[in-house]
Amino acid sequence: MGELPMRLTVISLEEPTDRVAAVFTSNAFPGAPVRVGRRRMAESGKLQAVVINNKISNVSPPDSDGGVSASETLCAELAKQLSLESAELVLPSSTGVIGWRLPVKEMVAALPQAEDLATGSAVPAAKGIMTTDRYPKLAARELSQGRLVGIAKGAGMIEPNMATMLCFLLTDVDLPRTELQTMLTEAVADTFNCISVDGDESTSDTVALLSSGQAGPVPKEEFQAALQAVCADLAAQVVRNGEGTGHVIRVAVTGGDTPTARSVAKAVANGPLFKSAIAGNDPNVGRLIGKVGQALGSAASLADGCVCRIGGETIFAEGQFQLDTEKEKRLSGHLKFASADCESSYPQHRRVVDVEVMLGGGGSGKAVVLGSDLTTEYVKINADYRS
Amino acid sequence: MGELPMRLTVISLEEPTDRVAAVFTSNAFPGAPVRVGRRRMAESGKLQAVVINNKISNVSPPDSDGGVSASETLCAELAKQLSLESAELVLPSSTGVIGWRLPVKEMVAALPQAEDLATGSAVPAAKGIMTTDRYPKLAARELSQGRLVGIAKGAGMIEPNMATMLCFLLTDVDLPRTELQTMLTEAVADTFNCISVDGDESTSDTVALLSSGQAGPVPKEEFQAALQAVCADLAAQVVRNGEGTGHVIRVAVTGGDTPTARSVAKAVANGPLFKSAIAGNDPNVGRLIGKVGQALGSAASLADGCVCRIGGETIFAEGQFQLDTEKEKRLSGHLKFASADCESSYPQHRRVVDVEVMLGGGGSGKAVVLGSDLTTEYVKINADYRS
Repeated sequence: MGELPMRLTVISLEEPTDRVAAVFTSNAFPGAPVRVGRRRMAESGKLQAVVINNKISNVSPPDSDGGVSASETLCAELAKQLSLESAELVLPSSTGVIGWRLPVKEMVAALPQAEDLATGSAVPAAKGIMTTDRYPKLAARELSQGRLVGIAKGAGMIEPNMATMLCFLLTDVDLPRTELQTMLTEAVADTFNCISVDGDESTSDTVALLSSGQAGPVPKEEFQAALQAVCADLAAQVVRNGEGTGHVIRVAVTGGDTPTARSVAKAVANGPLFKSAIAGNDPNVGRLIGKVGQALGSAASLADGCVCRIGGETIFAEGQFQLDTEKEKRLSGHLKFASADCESSYPQHRRVVDVEVMLGGGGSGKAVVLGSDLTTEYVKINADYRS
Repeated sequence: MGELPMRLTVISLEEPTDRVAAVFTSNAFPGAPVRVGRRRMAESGKLQAVVINNKISNVSPPDSDGGVSASETLCAELAKQLSLESAELVLPSSTGVIGWRLPVKEMVAALPQAEDLATGSAVPAAKGIMTTDRYPKLAARELSQGRLVGIAKGAGMIEPNMATMLCFLLTDVDLPRTELQTMLTEAVADTFNCISVDGDESTSDTVALLSSGQAGPVPKEEFQAALQAVCADLAAQVVRNGEGTGHVIRVAVTGGDTPTARSVAKAVANGPLFKSAIAGNDPNVGRLIGKVGQALGSAASLADGCVCRIGGETIFAEGQFQLDTEKEKRLSGHLKFASADCESSYPQHRRVVDVEVMLGGGGSGKAVVLGSDLTTEYVKINADYRS
């Protein structure tokens, strides 16, 4: 971590806009930038710029105000530099080690050299916000009028391994703020809140959407679909780029109600034994059933008639395992096909380990969660971090 | 796993007893022995013997009755051999790979050679029920009249890695069945249900208590204390013996209400990033705060004033980290002192990484959870299982 230089990235618009929306971590110990950001959204509700730093997340540092004035100072200095009306127009965002003090003075001095996403390609900004990420993450969609572009960072779900999830979405469509917030909240629920590298939620997670409104209005449904697609794309890239990730696991659960389906899918995606087996290309299907049964607990009606498939192969149905030697070979083949070199500095493919769980007893619940396997590399990255 | 021979272990009493109690897994896919055991407890309610096998857990095998008749056949044959009145007096218990068929014929043939805990030392039986366990686990307490002896197995929380948690407790005190069941349920809640190697719950977990009643009655409080102590001792041994466990982590949470305290303690004990840091002797305290905050979510009153200590050192208080270089060194020392060789075939010491979380806002909640670190050995054991 000592080797990683701090980088400052700025996103700026030509005019202030109230077409903004944001979703923050639900962690009870949010970082100072999250606390400031929440206040911006509640008070002025207008933004013109975002300033992002990596390396230090500004969470509960030994400052009397928990890092808030450090974030505010940075916003004020950027506002001055960009000739904005007020520091209130700047959203701060930090990712990096928890508990350290932000070197505000050095950061202010470095502001003029910050990478700026005001114009041109989003690639430098996507690179600028990286920490342990192995590659920059971008996604975009063209709309009937205007465009939606997003950049994200994240490699584990939590820092201090400098891997908090941040996402910034920019568009020029003309849609009112309340609609943007509703659509963003929904899109985050189905995408960023349905991924897991390690089940650890950070103190700094932030997804922010800013619209200049300079293109015309587009139908609400059109923008919503694009927003979902861009968020889903970025979320998948975050998992693919997870610390030590060799396999991305896609768990689709149907049946029961949606909260139950989601909790089963999350349990499977976060099950250490199942994740470890996938890492070893071992279709250890008992671990899948064990985890589904654990998540269901005594909800026997959802267990009766439960069907599980991996790679399209039925491995459990009618209360029994449905396996034979040939099927096991095909399952191993599916896992190997989905594996990737977890050291690679670019995404090699978009293949996933495809897990389907159909709960018994009917029910129209639905959830899709993307997770990663559990590799020795993950443990090495996170155990040897400072030793 | 192919190398591990199947072993049969028998526990038998001289007379049938209705002084029995049992707690089973809450997994929605329980194995056949658990289903048979639940029926025994509900119907006859009398037991005289237990027959335990390792290697195959008899969970959802491709039998038309899900393995129930396989378990029943084994009970019937043991009843015949021991001249018991009925097969209903035998509790079956299996641990091992999920989804395989029990080789009943071979097991019946092997019954006469089964290790029997009828008389003498409990060590052979404790060894008999081992699977990936590196050492046998026993605990005992003398009572004013009679004795309580327990054996347990378990190295991960779930099989197919052959590591389901089983525990058998034997005593000769004369206490009525209903009291035994209440006391066992309580003891399990505070001990076996407060440990976690990997957060994976098995389909076969069983804790059974049998009393011959041949010693006199003892005060209820005396037995309860002994039961708690023996269960706590065995539970700690299971964690100490966890797959790849290098550190045992003791998380004590006070404040809030007890369910909240327990959920915070479990979240910390199961947090992959915190567990990985402990494995590397890295006092990465930001990960502890992140996990506590995640478990609390928006319960801000419990976050305000929260105090966290590791090894007796205050690392977080008044909303800030309380760290300095000397304290960090002491924290590293505490972790190193608590570490053990995870390959060792005997427990080297009983030291733990001592984590305390005092939630803010008052509240009399209390929970202690024992967990293990997350090591590369854990992943290797569980990834390379069949490859």
